[in-house]
Amino acid sequence: MQRLNRIQTRQLVALTHKTAKFWQQPRVLYQTRCLATLPVGEVLFPTKSDFPSRHIGPRKTDVVAMLDTLGFKSLEELTNKAVPSRIQLQRELNLEKPLNEHELVRHIRGIAKRNEIWRSYIGMGYHNCHVPHTIVRNVFENPGWFTQYTPYQPEISQGRLESLLNYQTLVAEMTGLDVANASLLDEGTAAAEAMSLCTRHNRRKKIYLSNKLHPQTLSVVQTRAEALEFVTEIGPIESADLEGREISGILLQYPDTFGDVKDFEDTAEKARKNGTLIVVATDLLALTLLRPPAEFGADIAIGTSQRLGVPLGYGGPHAGFFACKQNLVRLMPGRMIGVTRDMDGNDAYRLALQTREQHIRRDKATSNICTAQALLANMSAMYAVYHGPEGLKEIANRIHHFALALDTGLREAGHRVNNKNFFDTLHVTPSEALSIDDIKTRAEQKRINFRYFPDGSVGVALDETVGPHDINDLLWVFKCKTLDEILAECDILTNSIERSKFLRTSPFLQHPIFSSHHSESRMVRYMKRLENKDISLVHSMIPLGSCTMKLNSTTEMIPCSFRHFTDIHPFAPVEQAKGYHQMFSELEKDLCEITGYDKISFQPNSGAQGEYAGLRAIRRYHEHRNESHRNVCLIPISAHGTNPASAQMAGMKVEPIRILSDGSIDMAHLRDKASEHDKDLSCLMITYPSTMGVFEETVAEICDLIHKHGGQVYLDGANMNAQVGLCRPGDYGSDVSHLNLHKTFCIPHGGGGPGMGPIGVKAHLAPYLPGHPVISPLECEQESFGVVSAAPFGSSAILPISWSYIKLMGSRGLKRATQVAILNANYMSKRLENHYKTLYKSSKSGLVAHEFILDLRDLKKSANIEAVDIAKRLMDYGFHAPTMSWPVAGTLMIEPTESEDKEELDRFCDAMISIREEIVEIEEGRMDKVVNPLKMAPHTQAQVISDKWNRPYTREVAAFPALFVRPEAKIWPTVGRIDDAYGDKHLVCTCPPILPDL
Amino acid sequence: MQRLNRIQTRQLVALTHKTAKFWQQPRVLYQTRCLATLPVGEVLFPTKSDFPSRHIGPRKTDVVAMLDTLGFKSLEELTNKAVPSRIQLQRELNLEKPLNEHELVRHIRGIAKRNEIWRSYIGMGYHNCHVPHTIVRNVFENPGWFTQYTPYQPEISQGRLESLLNYQTLVAEMTGLDVANASLLDEGTAAAEAMSLCTRHNRRKKIYLSNKLHPQTLSVVQTRAEALEFVTEIGPIESADLEGREISGILLQYPDTFGDVKDFEDTAEKARKNGTLIVVATDLLALTLLRPPAEFGADIAIGTSQRLGVPLGYGGPHAGFFACKQNLVRLMPGRMIGVTRDMDGNDAYRLALQTREQHIRRDKATSNICTAQALLANMSAMYAVYHGPEGLKEIANRIHHFALALDTGLREAGHRVNNKNFFDTLHVTPSEALSIDDIKTRAEQKRINFRYFPDGSVGVALDETVGPHDINDLLWVFKCKTLDEILAECDILTNSIERSKFLRTSPFLQHPIFSSHHSESRMVRYMKRLENKDISLVHSMIPLGSCTMKLNSTTEMIPCSFRHFTDIHPFAPVEQAKGYHQMFSELEKDLCEITGYDKISFQPNSGAQGEYAGLRAIRRYHEHRNESHRNVCLIPISAHGTNPASAQMAGMKVEPIRILSDGSIDMAHLRDKASEHDKDLSCLMITYPSTMGVFEETVAEICDLIHKHGGQVYLDGANMNAQVGLCRPGDYGSDVSHLNLHKTFCIPHGGGGPGMGPIGVKAHLAPYLPGHPVISPLECEQESFGVVSAAPFGSSAILPISWSYIKLMGSRGLKRATQVAILNANYMSKRLENHYKTLYKSSKSGLVAHEFILDLRDLKKSANIEAVDIAKRLMDYGFHAPTMSWPVAGTLMIEPTESEDKEELDRFCDAMISIREEIVEIEEGRMDKVVNPLKMAPHTQAQVISDKWNRPYTREVAAFPALFVRPEAKIWPTVGRIDDAYGDKHLVCTCPPILPDL
Repeated sequence: MQRLNRIQTRQLVALTHKTAKFWQQPRVLYQTRCLATLPVGEVLFPTKSDFPSRHIGPRKTDVVAMLDTLGFKSLEELTNKAVPSRIQLQRELNLEKPLNEHELVRHIRGIAKRNEIWRSYIGMGYHNCHVPHTIVRNVFENPGWFTQYTPYQPEISQGRLESLLNYQTLVAEMTGLDVANASLLDEGTAAAEAMSLCTRHNRRKKIYLSNKLHPQTLSVVQTRAEALEFVTEIGPIESADLEGREISGILLQYPDTFGDVKDFEDTAEKARKNGTLIVVATDLLALTLLRPPAEFGADIAIGTSQRLGVPLGYGGPHAGFFACKQNLVRLMPGRMIGVTRDMDGNDAYRLALQTREQHIRRDKATSNICTAQALLANMSAMYAVYHGPEGLKEIANRIHHFALALDTGLREAGHRVNNKNFFDTLHVTPSEALSIDDIKTRAEQKRINFRYFPDGSVGVALDETVGPHDINDLLWVFKCKTLDEILAECDILTNSIERSKFLRTSPFLQHPIFSSHHSESRMVRYMKRLENKDISLVHSMIPLGSCTMKLNSTTEMIPCSFRHFTDIHPFAPVEQAKGYHQMFSELEKDLCEITGYDKISFQPNSGAQGEYAGLRAIRRYHEHRNESHRNVCLIPISAHGTNPASAQMAGMKVEPIRILSDGSIDMAHLRDKASEHDKDLSCLMITYPSTMGVFEETVAEICDLIHKHGGQVYLDGANMNAQVGLCRPGDYGSDVSHLNLHKTFCIPHGGGGPGMGPIGVKAHLAPYLPGHPVISPLECEQESFGVVSAAPFGSSAILPISWSYIKLMGSRGLKRATQVAILNANYMSKRLENHYKTLYKSSKSGLVAHEFILDLRDLKKSANIEAVDIAKRLMDYGFHAPTMSWPVAGTLMIEPTESEDKEELDRFCDAMISIREEIVEIEEGRMDKVVNPLKMAPHTQAQVISDKWNRPYTREVAAFPALFVRPEAKIWPTVGRIDDAYGDKHLVCTCPPILPDL
Repeated sequence: MQRLNRIQTRQLVALTHKTAKFWQQPRVLYQTRCLATLPVGEVLFPTKSDFPSRHIGPRKTDVVAMLDTLGFKSLEELTNKAVPSRIQLQRELNLEKPLNEHELVRHIRGIAKRNEIWRSYIGMGYHNCHVPHTIVRNVFENPGWFTQYTPYQPEISQGRLESLLNYQTLVAEMTGLDVANASLLDEGTAAAEAMSLCTRHNRRKKIYLSNKLHPQTLSVVQTRAEALEFVTEIGPIESADLEGREISGILLQYPDTFGDVKDFEDTAEKARKNGTLIVVATDLLALTLLRPPAEFGADIAIGTSQRLGVPLGYGGPHAGFFACKQNLVRLMPGRMIGVTRDMDGNDAYRLALQTREQHIRRDKATSNICTAQALLANMSAMYAVYHGPEGLKEIANRIHHFALALDTGLREAGHRVNNKNFFDTLHVTPSEALSIDDIKTRAEQKRINFRYFPDGSVGVALDETVGPHDINDLLWVFKCKTLDEILAECDILTNSIERSKFLRTSPFLQHPIFSSHHSESRMVRYMKRLENKDISLVHSMIPLGSCTMKLNSTTEMIPCSFRHFTDIHPFAPVEQAKGYHQMFSELEKDLCEITGYDKISFQPNSGAQGEYAGLRAIRRYHEHRNESHRNVCLIPISAHGTNPASAQMAGMKVEPIRILSDGSIDMAHLRDKASEHDKDLSCLMITYPSTMGVFEETVAEICDLIHKHGGQVYLDGANMNAQVGLCRPGDYGSDVSHLNLHKTFCIPHGGGGPGMGPIGVKAHLAPYLPGHPVISPLECEQESFGVVSAAPFGSSAILPISWSYIKLMGSRGLKRATQVAILNANYMSKRLENHYKTLYKSSKSGLVAHEFILDLRDLKKSANIEAVDIAKRLMDYGFHAPTMSWPVAGTLMIEPTESEDKEELDRFCDAMISIREEIVEIEEGRMDKVVNPLKMAPHTQAQVISDKWNRPYTREVAAFPALFVRPEAKIWPTVGRIDDAYGDKHLVCTCPPILPDL
């Protein structure tokens, strides 16, 4: 388009001003100065790239009013003051021109279609499945389910807690074990966690790995073992020397990666006698037919529940599962839902055992696990609820029978099928009459992917979506008879599970929840009932400090449902995944520009995984420079608990760095420690802005100091939402960061996962990023430290969300988002300053960053009120509590994000102020110290509607404490305050025996 | 696949029995007798065509238990007794083998892709638009919005009532008129209703139609006018002779069908003086820039709000709108939302004026309108809420500027643009240098559709989705300069609205609701808050007699979102709509097989429209047989009020037929009347099973009788859900029926529309079905009686729902659905028989059909309790009331449908029984006759949580009257009982001045 010069523009403006009233509306662009260089077209046809104004909450007039409250004239002025000038980015980010929402969907649909969807029989832990449409729409595509936070506030989270308990019940019953957790990141990490558990349990350092594990499982476990200095032995299970009493645990696969179903009873018996634990990687669907691992002596079972109703998604996200015997439960990693009771004695669910152990144990922690895969675990749980035990068995039988028919056909045609017993996977050595190249050619002709082994044999894994037509195609590829011919001529059941000793005889999923929701009406109502128990972003702001609960827009979510993204196997040939790879490389480019790094690894599928991967890359870097002795990791004591836990897992020695009373790093102490460890300094881990919510002035200086002592800087990217467009870690000295795409880059929290934690590194660290044994994400696999996730690109299927966010916002939109995030936090801090003390602010600017901490410790003395009481009372006002007692006990940390508008911020502040007034009543003796609206909060319907109400405050005060809490929009907690102590004492982690379902 | 004979099957069964325990599970197919002839494949690989078991609520064991309660051994035995043997279908329906849900989506995606999506500049009332993604997902694709019923029970419908009030506000403010209704079916019918209103208002019989109306509007109005014997004149507005005081109303278009914006002030002034009403067909988006019709003297404005956020969908569904001056409000057709107050004096919304006037006035009714387009009106209202007045103006300006640039380019290149003033549509007479064939060829090359006029001129209508690239393509087609060249060289604003006298100066959408929800977070919360105020099928059964609120499954809904279905213009060349036409013809074939008819017209987009179309076809049939004097329509007095209203609109004389005390038609009276009208009998309208919920034995006899007297039988298809697979109207003597696809065939009710009412006819009536002036659905247009809807195939975009339902269910599934619908009704009637009296049952079988009527009239005497009290009390139990006082005053009519399972039926019965016990308390004097839980129902949170509770029953009795009403799942009414009288006295039908939004 032609561009106008300044004079022409003025003329056009003047002209239209004179003649056209509608031009005079405040929204019109050309009244601003920048218009001088706008093309005519943009004056007459303003591009509808208005997504930033949809994503960012406050309207322009609100921004002006809020800035005014803080004494600033513009956002620039605010953030120039908030962000230390030394680190400020002095230019606009170099990103593509933003797309509007409709252009974006069109564009990414084109990219998705570059992925070719072949039929995949690769298996290896990833199987096609039919996701029930009603679950897709009512859970996966429903913001009421995907925008929820992790259920740390159980009173307003009973819906997803119930669903996750269903998941645990499913896993426990299918494996036959006593307890299961609420999901892990994937099968590989579940295996690694299991092996760690073994070593902790019996304090032996040697682990034995079957040589028939999926290769990615093997790699992930080996990588972890290396840093933890476990002795690893790989071989046939029969060869494990159990007599020596050295082996901590044995990891085996059932059915194994070749599809074989073997009998491990003897091994398990021997292991039991020798104090060795048996860990079984298994397949929940196969276990509807096969004898469960617990029955042949397994102590732990792990795997993925992907094939139960979650699409392939090029590798993730899916829920990994973990089940174990009762005696190991207190060593179990990850989150576990437990049944307890509320203050009225009603059954209630909650996260049991405070299993986010890294919060408590820091570098003594044995796992850095933080994120789970709640949304995907919920989908699998709903899949089980929808199908029930008989339905699941029917699905499994159908697959198994097809496998039997295929097996028969292959043998008939002279091929060797190496498995005697199998569920769905055959390991085929083709007859000499048919070359492997012929097979490949014929398979390609039918758009079929197999697993090709180096020895010329072929793996064929069937799944739920396979029909007679597909079997006939498979038979055709191998030049066999047709299915009809085979069925007519042979008894295909000869090798069947039902005629073998492996047949499962024990019942499963007997709880009524799994047999009550088989009609769609019933299923929809169940999903909706659970949804409506929980507060999510569809109700109100969730101001969780350090969690960045911002808008997850529909447009960003739409591509996640494209079947060209959902239906591709992670180990499909890369030529078939051109769409994904285009998206990866575009997203990498954008993230590098945003962070100042040179290379991104998408493999880590949580923030903690990112930390671990980053630290491992640093370690590898030092090793390659022959400085493998560098193993000290400096971590400020204010750091998130995952930091030291990750360092420990990466085999580093953690040295804590003190902080000053204003929350900033004690520079003197840091200098001392850096000098002290000059020779063995590996790295510093630092969060920026700090976990105290402050832009510290010294960050660049700190990075210089560490480098001077030969160390690397790991900058925790949790707080990137305060930096995008304003400053770049790569510029001011950091070497590596993880990026919580589920915070700053709009991937929804899903009620406790999926997360996504890719890491950005400077060029010198790039060679050492994670590799993969099947599909390498690296140019040179040799330099890599190893593998952190089962899938080469982590949770690929949710990356379109972050890709879309960046494309929709553009450089100006992203910067403005950051500025408004900072504005919102400072505005709230200001509004609350007469009522609560903000614990830390920048000593220089007097400002907070994008979040701030309210110090409530005085209230304990004055009114016996603790942070938890305010958190619970906020529920009565319709809000989810901010982050509680972290990073400082007795505080609340508030992060509003840019997506909340002034009205919502004001509403939240009004609630906080009103609560403060309630506390004054206690302080001044006008309200009882024990029975008051805070201590008794949250209030349930049953309580306030009871005729037995006998509290010293009214029902209205309990339930409608502010004018804006209106009966027609009130979100009620569905249970009263949870009794944590009771739950810890009486641990119940599967569906309770009687759970009347209505 | 090979088939086993009986012996082979037994062997296989025996074999597997012996060896495999899992075969012995009750679900396995081969234990049933039919297995004897199943192919082996189906034993080993049972087809996953399990949709019927998802659609139908009761499990097999429940069916057995329910049959047992009724004393039957099988469903066959039950329905053989329920359905008169004379009319029973003695064979299976001949439909294709059913598909499973995943096959279905794959299959229909293939059909959809046969539609070619060209860029459409055809206009004529249909424009592409950008539907905001968040509205698509959170309203259109959300069962919480689309499964709601019409808001007749306002206390549990405040959400959609508020949204519809926003719609009315939008329409009233854009047109400048005082009041608007909550939508009509489309622009054509809105125009026809408007002209009827004129004739009623001033009692003149002549209407004057502009010759610049859209052709389909003209046709619909003319068709209506013909039957009502209006004198119709068509011509230029200037030529209307207003002095004669004969013209009732003038219908004109602004901007007109050529895109012209003309000044009608003088005409309007003259009309006003002469008592003639001015009706303006207009465009809400254009009115953001153009002076609104009210300001130049319009009395009524009508049109479609499609372009405000509703996809094209090949013609519908979209909301037609209707606005008028205050003095005409009580003549306004359709539904209108009004503001009133509840028993506590709080503001509340409800349907005002009981405008379903056909219920009251029957053949004195002036309109048969029953269905609205609530879901689509809500989408448009949300579009306005999301964009706000400035956003809408920005969209309109952009379009207008593009049109100006195009206009300039066309003139420059020597073409004649016939419009001087325009908004978005140009009427182009090409220069002689460029032939119309060249233009067509060039347009086809770019996949562009224009409107081609017979005189060689071209219509080009722009829309919201047009960008610079599209304008350049248009310019290229006409061999003009490029957009950049035009902008550089010319002042395109010369002809702009802003420089004309047509510029709008009055503000609009000033209510805060239209300026508070512009960020997506805010918008999502608003949609969710409204959703959660309303009961829909996602919460509980909605047992509305005669409305068939069955499951609307996700799978059926998915294709409605396919862009190959949503983005095609209804007047696109049929070669581009191959997918739609394939679906039409497949659905037609299936519906013919199901009903026994020979031909279907999809044009009527509601049941009442179907009645009208069917009766008009009958009339045309008689005319063609030179029996145009046949104009008497016999209608039993138990008929739905639309029947006589439609007959009146079709120009027939209604003769009521008496019914007997058992609810059945008085055969003697019918015989008398048929004989009496032997010469002038046009037809009988009959509902089957009767509106009393009974399969009358005499139906075939009645049909014979009518035919004997030269009449035709119109069978109201509202109760097809009791017939599918069991009997066929076409077999037992009916000549024509409408099929409420939104009842029996799973189109959701959408909170009060869309509906869809295609008609099936026997071959002799086929030539007389509706035609269309643009795209003919008929082979021979001449025989057609005319046009009933604006779009040739009605609401095409929702037909995939019914198509999918039939393909998923197959013949057996459909039959079983009907059988279970009958079972469910009889089971409930039985369970309630000791507590309430079922008013009518078949005297022969003792059974009801698929619904039944509870007679509550005795309770008025015994306890002063009326049907409405029970209806409102049911809300406290979490249920939507059944149909109230229809077809008999003082009753409730219950239709459970097949989709509800036994547990839900029992829960509803338990509620009814519990309410009956509450009534006993009143009868026995233990509860006050005035202040009791029924009279005070429904109970709101504000009431039961108030400290001022002083009723003679407890809060718990009020809010949790049964064990299954649990606080954690309770659906609360958001207002107390509505004060209808107050609302009727104080009519407020736009957003009330103060509506604090939180």
